[in-house]
Amino acid sequence: MMKKTIYIYLIIFMNKRSRPTMHFSINRDYFINQLNHVARAIPGKAAIPVLTGMKLELKSDRLILTGSDASISIESVIETSQEAAQLQVTTPGSIVLSARLFIDIVRKLPTNQVEIQVQDHYNVQLTSGKAVFTIQGVDSSQYPVLPETDEDKPVTLPGLLFKKLINQTIFSASNQENRPILTGLNLSFHDGYLTGVATDSHRLSKRDIPIKDLNPSLKGLNITIPKKTVIELTRILDDESNVTFYVMAQQLVFHFDNLVIYSRLLEGTFPDTSRLIPTTYNTELTVNTQSFSQALERAALLVHVAKSNVVQLKMSQGSVALLVQGISIGQSTEELSYDSLEGDDLTIAFNPDYMRDAVKSFGDTTIKLGFISGERPLLLREDKVEEGHNDLIQLLTPIRTHHA
Amino acid sequence: MMKKTIYIYLIIFMNKRSRPTMHFSINRDYFINQLNHVARAIPGKAAIPVLTGMKLELKSDRLILTGSDASISIESVIETSQEAAQLQVTTPGSIVLSARLFIDIVRKLPTNQVEIQVQDHYNVQLTSGKAVFTIQGVDSSQYPVLPETDEDKPVTLPGLLFKKLINQTIFSASNQENRPILTGLNLSFHDGYLTGVATDSHRLSKRDIPIKDLNPSLKGLNITIPKKTVIELTRILDDESNVTFYVMAQQLVFHFDNLVIYSRLLEGTFPDTSRLIPTTYNTELTVNTQSFSQALERAALLVHVAKSNVVQLKMSQGSVALLVQGISIGQSTEELSYDSLEGDDLTIAFNPDYMRDAVKSFGDTTIKLGFISGERPLLLREDKVEEGHNDLIQLLTPIRTHHA
Repeated sequence: MMKKTIYIYLIIFMNKRSRPTMHFSINRDYFINQLNHVARAIPGKAAIPVLTGMKLELKSDRLILTGSDASISIESVIETSQEAAQLQVTTPGSIVLSARLFIDIVRKLPTNQVEIQVQDHYNVQLTSGKAVFTIQGVDSSQYPVLPETDEDKPVTLPGLLFKKLINQTIFSASNQENRPILTGLNLSFHDGYLTGVATDSHRLSKRDIPIKDLNPSLKGLNITIPKKTVIELTRILDDESNVTFYVMAQQLVFHFDNLVIYSRLLEGTFPDTSRLIPTTYNTELTVNTQSFSQALERAALLVHVAKSNVVQLKMSQGSVALLVQGISIGQSTEELSYDSLEGDDLTIAFNPDYMRDAVKSFGDTTIKLGFISGERPLLLREDKVEEGHNDLIQLLTPIRTHHA
Repeated sequence: MMKKTIYIYLIIFMNKRSRPTMHFSINRDYFINQLNHVARAIPGKAAIPVLTGMKLELKSDRLILTGSDASISIESVIETSQEAAQLQVTTPGSIVLSARLFIDIVRKLPTNQVEIQVQDHYNVQLTSGKAVFTIQGVDSSQYPVLPETDEDKPVTLPGLLFKKLINQTIFSASNQENRPILTGLNLSFHDGYLTGVATDSHRLSKRDIPIKDLNPSLKGLNITIPKKTVIELTRILDDESNVTFYVMAQQLVFHFDNLVIYSRLLEGTFPDTSRLIPTTYNTELTVNTQSFSQALERAALLVHVAKSNVVQLKMSQGSVALLVQGISIGQSTEELSYDSLEGDDLTIAFNPDYMRDAVKSFGDTTIKLGFISGERPLLLREDKVEEGHNDLIQLLTPIRTHHA
């Protein structure tokens, strides 16, 4: 009788002093992999300090890791049913931990099993083999709540194809915040295909990919995704996975594997760029992307040291050359090999790095460069036998020089 | 007759306008390799601007590349007889070229043959395939003359052994210039062996290696080599090569393969450290270097974030633990596995990074840590079955703490 009384008293006492303590164990290698994904969204420094932390939320059947920089959030959902995770839930709960320190510790733990338990005062104990770490956590109620999502009208694409669209366009997005809409990747939904466009007003990249079974209500939809979101997506998304996304009023949610990425959308109207794209040319040059790209890299050497940004392409009487001149440290010339040169003689100047990005986006193939004059944008497209629609085009504004 | 007159006139005219023009061709891959070696001595910025350049000196049978930061100079001698170099000398001469730009260009040239020719006004033309670069060089007479060397009384050592001596000691050298002599590696020559010592007064590393056929006049010689020199030596010297060095009044010259390294010596007297090394201990701990090193790495995690530098090793009643405590962000403890523990109970505090450097210097093996007290330097040595001379010892000064 006496014993029982004491027992009840202790229960009451503990309830007053402590909260339900999160407690689980997990396979370290699997955990590290998920931590690394989620950490991609977590800034090193943040105006809201809790955002430098990672939130761990443990339910009876799953662990949810969240990282966010307010513009992009990444969630990893690890379920007890995933065998490789070896997740064992003792007590549900939640906590926020300093992301960098937490990941550093987990990475260096001595065994492949890690046990994590929240103690009093948000102290968190990590145990692995004979090593025991105790670090200070933060009450998870301080962590911002992610917006509610309305997972309606999904769009599903093969991961590899969507990554290709991103990689072939995003380098043309602006890095300057004076026109925020130009810092993103614009996606527009058409009948049977999706178009991605990025431009900083000096260059433009445009890629179409086919899309099946698009919900009719999405036709005509036009959204612009922040550059950081699509870059992180290319880094995390597996080639073999499908990615499903949901478009909401001001945000976008990507689902793939056990990950969820929330991203804000850029506000404003993306400029209509279709009228900029030329259809007829006065000069056309057909080249192999690899040899042209290597020549551009060489031409850029002196240009970079001189902090100039001008290389000239001189097409004259059947000869094609890249020239760097007019800078004090030196000059260079290189005769280019080419497949064909048609139309008027022309000299045109451009930024060699922009041209190289554009050329490399086609992969190892043969491309056509179409020119109108030394002052008008030039167009790059794949050199296909059957003419018609170009899946990928790159547009580049020339630089006016005294030499041109 | 008329033709001949004009011809002579041109010769005279050219002689007045131009200097003998250096002209050669060489295999690019071989050249890049040598350029990279020599570039190690060349500073990115220098009080004497010409030192950011590389000197090329072409003789009828060899090309000498020189880089220098006034404290260390590296020369590569490429002879026409070295088949892989494919060096073809057209006209001897010399020039100084901006090292970084020159190497960047050579690295990206389109073919594996490069032709280099000095033109008027120290302009240098680099040609490879269809690419032609012209960059501005500098008159080589502006480049400092390397000191005369007196290549007498050579000392020759196997490259691997000398690199091992350097790697096992140099981390203990000081980074602080208030006692310049402690920023180097001290070498002293004894009967049959050579001793390398580095110390920053908080820790000390000492390694002996055998030396054969030492010139008797070198016995008792004591020199201190700048840290940068020995670090560069470990990076360039092949394990399989022998290195020969010559000691002069204020400098040292290393020869190996086709390279020559000139280094100044540090001035002053290196402190006699032999009396610091304890020979008896009150506590002795025998551990495996790998497991101890990994535990130290874990213990350093919180210490680094807290910008503290203290880890405690607690040896008590047959239990050995690494403890991190007294910092706000958290704490850690780890029970260590060990081979044997003898003598008095002891708790001692030290910098975990210093301890880890010391432990790792032994490679994967078993070592003994010998302690006198928590305030006296502790000694690390290899745990050998046959006792006697220790080729390598590491000495570490403990940190006094409130917890110790």
